[in-house]
Amino acid sequence: MTFAHIAIIGLGLQGGSIGLAVQAYLPDARVTGYDLDPATRARATERGLCHTVCESAEDAVAEADLVIFCVPPGAMGKAAAPLRSAIPADCLVSDVGSSKKRIAADLAEALPDHVVIPAHPVAGTENSGPDAGFATLFRNRWCIVTPPDQTDLVKLSQLVEFWEALGANVEIMSPPHHDLVLAVTSHLPHLIAYTIVGTASDLEDVTQGEVIKYSAGGFRDFTRIAASDPTMWRDVFLSNKEAVLTMLQRFTEDLTALQRAIRVGDGDTLFDHFTRTRAIRRSIIEEGQDDSRPDFGRSDHDGAAKKS
Amino acid sequence: MTFAHIAIIGLGLQGGSIGLAVQAYLPDARVTGYDLDPATRARATERGLCHTVCESAEDAVAEADLVIFCVPPGAMGKAAAPLRSAIPADCLVSDVGSSKKRIAADLAEALPDHVVIPAHPVAGTENSGPDAGFATLFRNRWCIVTPPDQTDLVKLSQLVEFWEALGANVEIMSPPHHDLVLAVTSHLPHLIAYTIVGTASDLEDVTQGEVIKYSAGGFRDFTRIAASDPTMWRDVFLSNKEAVLTMLQRFTEDLTALQRAIRVGDGDTLFDHFTRTRAIRRSIIEEGQDDSRPDFGRSDHDGAAKKS
Repeated sequence: MTFAHIAIIGLGLQGGSIGLAVQAYLPDARVTGYDLDPATRARATERGLCHTVCESAEDAVAEADLVIFCVPPGAMGKAAAPLRSAIPADCLVSDVGSSKKRIAADLAEALPDHVVIPAHPVAGTENSGPDAGFATLFRNRWCIVTPPDQTDLVKLSQLVEFWEALGANVEIMSPPHHDLVLAVTSHLPHLIAYTIVGTASDLEDVTQGEVIKYSAGGFRDFTRIAASDPTMWRDVFLSNKEAVLTMLQRFTEDLTALQRAIRVGDGDTLFDHFTRTRAIRRSIIEEGQDDSRPDFGRSDHDGAAKKS
Repeated sequence: MTFAHIAIIGLGLQGGSIGLAVQAYLPDARVTGYDLDPATRARATERGLCHTVCESAEDAVAEADLVIFCVPPGAMGKAAAPLRSAIPADCLVSDVGSSKKRIAADLAEALPDHVVIPAHPVAGTENSGPDAGFATLFRNRWCIVTPPDQTDLVKLSQLVEFWEALGANVEIMSPPHHDLVLAVTSHLPHLIAYTIVGTASDLEDVTQGEVIKYSAGGFRDFTRIAASDPTMWRDVFLSNKEAVLTMLQRFTEDLTALQRAIRVGDGDTLFDHFTRTRAIRRSIIEEGQDDSRPDFGRSDHDGAAKKS
């Protein structure tokens, strides 16, 4: 058994899914949880996200040998600092945040007496809050663990086993490299999606009703990730500023090149670019990282989604 | 009955789906088809996309009362012009192209003796070719019909009925307005997706393997539409250049504003923007234009997509 008692601070999509996954895949472990929001605690109790949802963070962590912070990236330090004396001395501290360099620093500063090994399960949906979690969220997804240079190797291997027990494939990475990889595979896509959805809703000559009506032409794919939790994403961009701005610069250069090709009518450049991008999709499907069915296997082709 | 004999020129995703849909929903109509590519014709025959796949376009249209051109936007005029004398005088000519101003002009010039009423079913998947089509592609999707100012109203209403019979909801629009609406709901999203997928595959400090592995963080959503048919999309951007460049300008301004907010650490601007974009997703789901299940209802949460 990897850990006997897991405490989860923050019971949204990630925290709730961990609670349910522990109960499903580590039946011998005990899981307690806490959320700052009383309504979330009440709902978490109703859904049984943990064995016990506690009324204070101190109670939740009191007997834990693994504490996982599942709060927005900007709130990690603030959530951890008051628990310095409440978290048992030998307890491992981890998190699920989407940026790692900044969070690793914040947690290490807040909990200088504990072993802290940050982690990031690359899994999620556009939903958030205590109703969003489900036990299979991490199955066949990657979890990136970013240990500091000097760390407790026994605890590191326990953490790896823990995520594997929840169904994830684990990869070890340095925090700066994690932040660069995620800037391109997650943070930039979210920023672009948030931008285009905003652009489309601000036009004068095309109505919002038209944008919604004809969204099946491609736009709707972007609205899904632009519906993700605003607090979390604000924090992700602020906490991974440098890598996001670097990637954004590259994106803008590439966009300018395609814009120019359209303007001057350079069909060959467009065709070559569009041919190259097909191969990536094929690899993602071969690696089991997406659904191979057309349109992600959306149900609407068989009329399951009805027009209101 | 709307039309007795429909001829389809071009047997890819759209043409093939129309052929199958006619056979499914208009069982009294006859449907013939033609494709320039012999391999496509052979596969179309095998799949039964039409009652008869002809060896020449002239044969396919000879007895039709509706001809639908389903070739890439840039090939419409070239496909139509040689059929000027082969298409019966009273036959209606239409198409399925994604841009309308330019295609309407090209078809009118190629077939000056015929009634031409362009149309655009806003439906598709990332797949293309004779294997991609299916009979239910148009169900609960919109089809935009863009008649010229002076047109045959009987034929117009027949065309509307035809698309309704295939399961589509029909909307009448002017070609320039269509091109503006689609520039934002379809063309810009595709351009952005093609760009970001290209950016991600060109990095030096992040490997392509890493991009694929961690694509579930958001990137994979973009790869689907960036896997669409390169020839068609080259033609879309070239034939709707003006509207696409206008929308791209707006997008770039908005992106610059968010970039600045990240650089200066303006969390409130980011939070407000990200909150606003959530509402659009809700409306799209309420209007039945997307699947409400998390992650588009992708199958991988239950482990259906296996890691290779």
